[in-house]
Amino acid sequence: MEARIQELRREIDRINREILRLLSERGRIASEIGRIQTELGLPHYDPAREEEMLAYLVAENPGPFPASTIKNLFKEIFRASLDLEERQDQKKFLY
Amino acid sequence: MEARIQELRREIDRINREILRLLSERGRIASEIGRIQTELGLPHYDPAREEEMLAYLVAENPGPFPASTIKNLFKEIFRASLDLEERQDQKKFLY
Repeated sequence: MEARIQELRREIDRINREILRLLSERGRIASEIGRIQTELGLPHYDPAREEEMLAYLVAENPGPFPASTIKNLFKEIFRASLDLEERQDQKKFLY
Repeated sequence: MEARIQELRREIDRINREILRLLSERGRIASEIGRIQTELGLPHYDPAREEEMLAYLVAENPGPFPASTIKNLFKEIFRASLDLEERQDQKKFLY
């Protein structure tokens, strides 16, 4: 039984690494979007776009996480991307 | 430029779906680990295991997110998994 836990934990480790890779790829793309928005004078925060993303994620959620958990996790990811875009602007305007 | 934002947003949508798929797969595996732990009388929360996961994720973090962001996002994922395991126990003991 404990060997089975070890085996499942190796699966979790693999998934963690894949999530890290995807989050990082997402961060790079969000930065690029942020740079274009700054050039065009558009705001980074777009509540309608966030609602649209949450709606399709909740609609496609296969479980086992409840919709509320999926929403909360993705809101944290959106917040992290927005922070990245805002820090990028600060660097641009400071130097 | 706005067309480029649209294109990048489609990339973000694809990545969101992949993250949803991986989170859900991770949730199913965490539930299975939780069931075994309950059978063996082991606690679900294992701070040493969480520290180990955070340490390798921070070590492998390619950016652009800072280590603090990666840690916070994964702590939220760990918290969601623990909630899932605890709700599962409640159902087991209630019915």
